[in-house]
Amino acid sequence: MSEPPSRELELIRAIRGAATRHQPGVQVGIGDDCAVLETAPGERLLVTTDLLLEDVHFRHRYATPRDIGWKALAVNLSDVAAMGGRPRWALVALGCPSGVRAEEVRDFFEAALALADEHDVVVVGGDTSSSRAGWVVNVTLLGTTAGRPVLRSGARPGDVVAVTGMLGRARAGLAVLDGGAVPGSLDTAARDEVVRAHLRPRPRVREGQWLGAASGVTAMIDLSDGLATDLRHVADESGVGARVQLDHVPVASSVRVVADALGDDAITWATSGGEDYELLVTCQANAFAALAGGLEDATGTTLTAVGEIVTGKPGVVFVDPQGVSVHVAAGFEHFVTDVRRD
Amino acid sequence: MSEPPSRELELIRAIRGAATRHQPGVQVGIGDDCAVLETAPGERLLVTTDLLLEDVHFRHRYATPRDIGWKALAVNLSDVAAMGGRPRWALVALGCPSGVRAEEVRDFFEAALALADEHDVVVVGGDTSSSRAGWVVNVTLLGTTAGRPVLRSGARPGDVVAVTGMLGRARAGLAVLDGGAVPGSLDTAARDEVVRAHLRPRPRVREGQWLGAASGVTAMIDLSDGLATDLRHVADESGVGARVQLDHVPVASSVRVVADALGDDAITWATSGGEDYELLVTCQANAFAALAGGLEDATGTTLTAVGEIVTGKPGVVFVDPQGVSVHVAAGFEHFVTDVRRD
Repeated sequence: MSEPPSRELELIRAIRGAATRHQPGVQVGIGDDCAVLETAPGERLLVTTDLLLEDVHFRHRYATPRDIGWKALAVNLSDVAAMGGRPRWALVALGCPSGVRAEEVRDFFEAALALADEHDVVVVGGDTSSSRAGWVVNVTLLGTTAGRPVLRSGARPGDVVAVTGMLGRARAGLAVLDGGAVPGSLDTAARDEVVRAHLRPRPRVREGQWLGAASGVTAMIDLSDGLATDLRHVADESGVGARVQLDHVPVASSVRVVADALGDDAITWATSGGEDYELLVTCQANAFAALAGGLEDATGTTLTAVGEIVTGKPGVVFVDPQGVSVHVAAGFEHFVTDVRRD
Repeated sequence: MSEPPSRELELIRAIRGAATRHQPGVQVGIGDDCAVLETAPGERLLVTTDLLLEDVHFRHRYATPRDIGWKALAVNLSDVAAMGGRPRWALVALGCPSGVRAEEVRDFFEAALALADEHDVVVVGGDTSSSRAGWVVNVTLLGTTAGRPVLRSGARPGDVVAVTGMLGRARAGLAVLDGGAVPGSLDTAARDEVVRAHLRPRPRVREGQWLGAASGVTAMIDLSDGLATDLRHVADESGVGARVQLDHVPVASSVRVVADALGDDAITWATSGGEDYELLVTCQANAFAALAGGLEDATGTTLTAVGEIVTGKPGVVFVDPQGVSVHVAAGFEHFVTDVRRD
């Protein structure tokens, strides 16, 4: 499958090139879920930051201030989870349009703090500002790691590709929120499940720490942009290819219900939708069974094998049960698609 | 002088209240220039974050992408300087409107990286996004400190209040950029100096480290919101009052030239203008002379005594040469001024 080059990736490469002249204290810089810093000999710190903008990452029409506060922290927790780290401290910067009610600002922070509390994360700083342009949120999260962080670059040919949980819910929830569903025409439980998955994602922090400490895991990334795009990141960083069995991708039944009701395609949502914040893992083939059993025992979360790492040029191929290559759209690209070159 | 309560401060207090239930590893949380984290026993990390929004913090009409990239890093460097810290690692998140040219994005990062290089700071991560609402920039900066960081809360009655460098340039530069000056009517050197001070502030990193290591310094803050507001922060956090001799405030001659040309008031710009990114220091009275001499020898930067810390209720009083209290407007308040209470 040939995909257009990722402009976000190009930009990251350009910055990485400029920023790698000398890197005291930097074990991993730009290009993974978190940067890994050596703050003192033997002490590793994980750092990640995410920008959430109204009408790009969420719409105020359906996302309440509580939803926004929750999700802004959740997406960063997910990045630390994807390194196998323990999230510790957060900085929350908020820009609000004039006319915002104090109650809305309080709701935003309360939801962020509630999720922070769940993970023993302390909000230690931030910034507040007026905004001429809707809600603007930036969260920076710092974490620690006892052992080696799990990078995107460790996948090797023969490894199993696996994902935690079920995919597609967040994209199905977006379809519902964007007004695709006629009220009443949709199974209420399925609707609520996918909407909640979109608005209040639950980052796999415990799962990430368990997998990070287990033996046999070779690479990890969180599914923010969708399986197709995030697995390509792993393949690119590891210098390998990947092959995914489409019929092995775990799709939540709620996603099938919503897709059927809206005349949309559940498997496309599961592979390309993004924002599920599940973990994508590669592991040695002989370690998979123990990892899947151990993870479910420890956290109640499933680990499903969906494909394998292969030799050859980087890239991701999706195949049907007959082994025939199937086109799957790339997932969400964060950066502007109409950047003009000059 | 009685001032309206700061809404930003109120909000910070509310968040601080909610966020202080339990704080493992946090030596200083919300409310100082940086948070101070204990990442490992005896290892202190400084962390700060700043959000810069188009049409709130800068106007694209006169601030180039290079100016924006520079300033976004500079304001964070200034926060680490104000704790006496050594800036180490930065995360840069950028949202750009659709239609932005790749060259503009490159310019933004190049300027940020150039300033980072000057201070041996490594850009280790970030985020890029499209924006429906102009340029949105968030920079998070991490620093380290060998000794104790200098807090806002250490000022004691009898201490001298002093500032580095000269004040008012940044506000004068804003007045020029906002179109106050008829081209040609203004001394070119003065114009260039104040415009540059506004667009390309030079954070006092070396000065902050020198002062942080010197003995006799009791509190420090950077002048981002203006002398009146930032000194009030020190007074509030220290539980003391402050008294400033208006005629002792060091005003750059370029500021007087520009103020005269525009029919504006140089001393108001110097006390309330904000964004000078000089350091405000309190120190034991008998240490001031050695500090001023030592700082100038070590860095070439002047330290000017402008007032003293007094007992009594927190607040800042400005007095004229006859000791008569003079009204000085509060400086820049970042948060929305029309938050509705409910």
